[in-house]
Amino acid sequence: MTRPLEPLALPGHGRSFADYQPQHFQWSLSDGVGTVTLNRPERKNPLTFESYAELRDLFRDLTYAEDVRVVVLRGEGGNFCSGGDVFEIIGPLVGADMPSLLRFTRMTGDLVKAMRGCPQPIVSAVDGICVGAGAILAMASDLRLGTPGTRTAFLFTRVGLAGCDMGACAILPRLIGQGRASELLFTGRTMSAEEGLAWGFFNALHAPEEVHAQALNLAAELASGPTFAHAMTKKMLHQEWAMGVDEAIEAEAQAQAICMLTRDYTRAYEAFAHKLKPQFEGD
Amino acid sequence: MTRPLEPLALPGHGRSFADYQPQHFQWSLSDGVGTVTLNRPERKNPLTFESYAELRDLFRDLTYAEDVRVVVLRGEGGNFCSGGDVFEIIGPLVGADMPSLLRFTRMTGDLVKAMRGCPQPIVSAVDGICVGAGAILAMASDLRLGTPGTRTAFLFTRVGLAGCDMGACAILPRLIGQGRASELLFTGRTMSAEEGLAWGFFNALHAPEEVHAQALNLAAELASGPTFAHAMTKKMLHQEWAMGVDEAIEAEAQAQAICMLTRDYTRAYEAFAHKLKPQFEGD
Amino acid sequence: MTRPLEPLALPGHGRSFADYQPQHFQWSLSDGVGTVTLNRPERKNPLTFESYAELRDLFRDLTYAEDVRVVVLRGEGGNFCSGGDVFEIIGPLVGADMPSLLRFTRMTGDLVKAMRGCPQPIVSAVDGICVGAGAILAMASDLRLGTPGTRTAFLFTRVGLAGCDMGACAILPRLIGQGRASELLFTGRTMSAEEGLAWGFFNALHAPEEVHAQALNLAAELASGPTFAHAMTKKMLHQEWAMGVDEAIEAEAQAQAICMLTRDYTRAYEAFAHKLKPQFEGD
Repeated sequence: MTRPLEPLALPGHGRSFADYQPQHFQWSLSDGVGTVTLNRPERKNPLTFESYAELRDLFRDLTYAEDVRVVVLRGEGGNFCSGGDVFEIIGPLVGADMPSLLRFTRMTGDLVKAMRGCPQPIVSAVDGICVGAGAILAMASDLRLGTPGTRTAFLFTRVGLAGCDMGACAILPRLIGQGRASELLFTGRTMSAEEGLAWGFFNALHAPEEVHAQALNLAAELASGPTFAHAMTKKMLHQEWAMGVDEAIEAEAQAQAICMLTRDYTRAYEAFAHKLKPQFEGD
Repeated sequence: MTRPLEPLALPGHGRSFADYQPQHFQWSLSDGVGTVTLNRPERKNPLTFESYAELRDLFRDLTYAEDVRVVVLRGEGGNFCSGGDVFEIIGPLVGADMPSLLRFTRMTGDLVKAMRGCPQPIVSAVDGICVGAGAILAMASDLRLGTPGTRTAFLFTRVGLAGCDMGACAILPRLIGQGRASELLFTGRTMSAEEGLAWGFFNALHAPEEVHAQALNLAAELASGPTFAHAMTKKMLHQEWAMGVDEAIEAEAQAQAICMLTRDYTRAYEAFAHKLKPQFEGD
Repeated sequence: MTRPLEPLALPGHGRSFADYQPQHFQWSLSDGVGTVTLNRPERKNPLTFESYAELRDLFRDLTYAEDVRVVVLRGEGGNFCSGGDVFEIIGPLVGADMPSLLRFTRMTGDLVKAMRGCPQPIVSAVDGICVGAGAILAMASDLRLGTPGTRTAFLFTRVGLAGCDMGACAILPRLIGQGRASELLFTGRTMSAEEGLAWGFFNALHAPEEVHAQALNLAAELASGPTFAHAMTKKMLHQEWAMGVDEAIEAEAQAQAICMLTRDYTRAYEAFAHKLKPQFEGD
């Protein structure tokens, strides 16, 4: 190339989330790590129509963020999330007509699509209760840290519904195996933290007083890495979900060649050549 | 809606299996749980051309059952199933022409398709020998309970055949991982019960004298649940097998919206609102 | 059939690898087991542009081999492979133009395609360092034996790249689960041998002084088996990767019917009928 490559300004991109103030959960941002805290601890952090919609909008908008490199997802007060509230969600849906029901199930599904579609890795810090749609939020994250007391249940069957909620029949089997996922989805039974670790649902377990700090450490490590490349890793894990092996290999040849044109790749080589630790900037 | 929704009679549906009397295995039905017992214990319950065909027909017809909510699959006499009999199946196939061979492999494959396609969850109670097509029957079930002495082997390679039998190269890797499945299918070696539990093939192990009762307990729990929704869970686990994540999420949005129109969903909400345990009826 | 089926000579098939002499790694062949030894132990057996290309060509040509039934892949001097060399590969790629980069990533991807596409099962004997493209070579094998000290890392992120290298985002999740694979690919952290065994990456661990011999034993066992059928098992594991269950079952019905026309199938039946161990010949 005869001149260095330059960034191009595109409408809507480069948005800052430093001053983002959601209505239905807490948000904080520090050194590129954004933390979403579900904060109705007296009810174990249930979801409502409003918080579903606002979470969906956040994760969609993160595609355009300039200052969010990793997201941590947690709950306040010793629990992660109790899922869709019986009286605020389950009740109103009883007797709703089909177009309304589909609007609801598509809204909740869109939250998972947005979590899988945003370029930032999502690290969940999961303590205590993690059930229903709460279990889905953990499942839809990229990495999951639990505590010995975490209790996870896909309990849709308990309210007369199917296990196929927000992508669970597709994603959960890939995390823990088809047989274990079938059991959890058919019975709605609780997966203990120990099972979750042994089966690959949790990446690690930490003490309850440490799990948030550990999630922040992991997030900080990722945020200091080559975040353009991390976003490509996340995108390709998504793209290749249902591809043949040969097609996946070609897709990765293209994706990795793109990453080889980043400045982070050059920085890494130059640091190695000088026996230094590379300083990545995500471009 | 201006009037309540009513069931519609369709030809062939609503069939009772109370008096079903198969020729080549045993059948019993109690409280919605149908039990298939392979009953040639002196040969460790091998399959024959006839029993393959009759099992295929049963699982196909279960789509139309009115009184079968869950199926338990087991063998008599301390063994699950020794697979295709050497003299009754393997011998006759030697020297058969291609159309005949394909008729046979399609018949056995149709049994697995029927097991995956019927709306009832299938719980296998697996003791002792579980090899060849017997291992496939366990694999094709939704849930598997074993005993410490269960010996499972996909031993097609021992008779000169490939591991790709009745869906094994697709299903087994999703249950226990691609590397372990490759080993079992290439070598035909026995998977111990302990390995089967650690790898996610078995959902649990029980003592030999308890495994049938435990399978019945699990089946009874499922049978008392929202069986319309259970059937949807099973259907979507099947549908989403090779779908992209976003497409799976949309498919689940539609499927779960359908379940939200069931009476079982209303029953669950009303029971919760009155602090009662819901009584599901499967509609 | 009115006459016995005969082999047909096709151009290029039936090639012998007895005298094959690669430039950039070692090759030996004994009793149908070909061994590839990466042999730059002073650098922990890195890959170079030349060795990538030569390995790709070997695995492609193995499709036509007459005398190679199984391949063992190993490294010399207590390490498996340190991946792409920093100065011989990473450096030259810095500043290369996009067509060149894509030629490189397609060449490395073609090596994995060739390993997955050749009919021989590949058994890796993995000791010591197994990182970067070295970890990919292990991942792309059919079976993996490790040692307690094996250290495996998909460390592309450390050089500013994405985890999507040579098929890793497709294959690794199927081996160890989506959540664990995500962690390894995002963080580049080392997977211990113990984790690799528990997670299903390694089929077994052996002492460092035994792992090569154990790999040869396993390879010899496979080489004495029905290798036409083994090749079909490998092919169908590949074909069914992203197929629906019903389509996979039909594909297996066809593939297994083909295997039932082999002489090895007849040999197996005749041996069983005479209570002998079958002698397979791979046709």
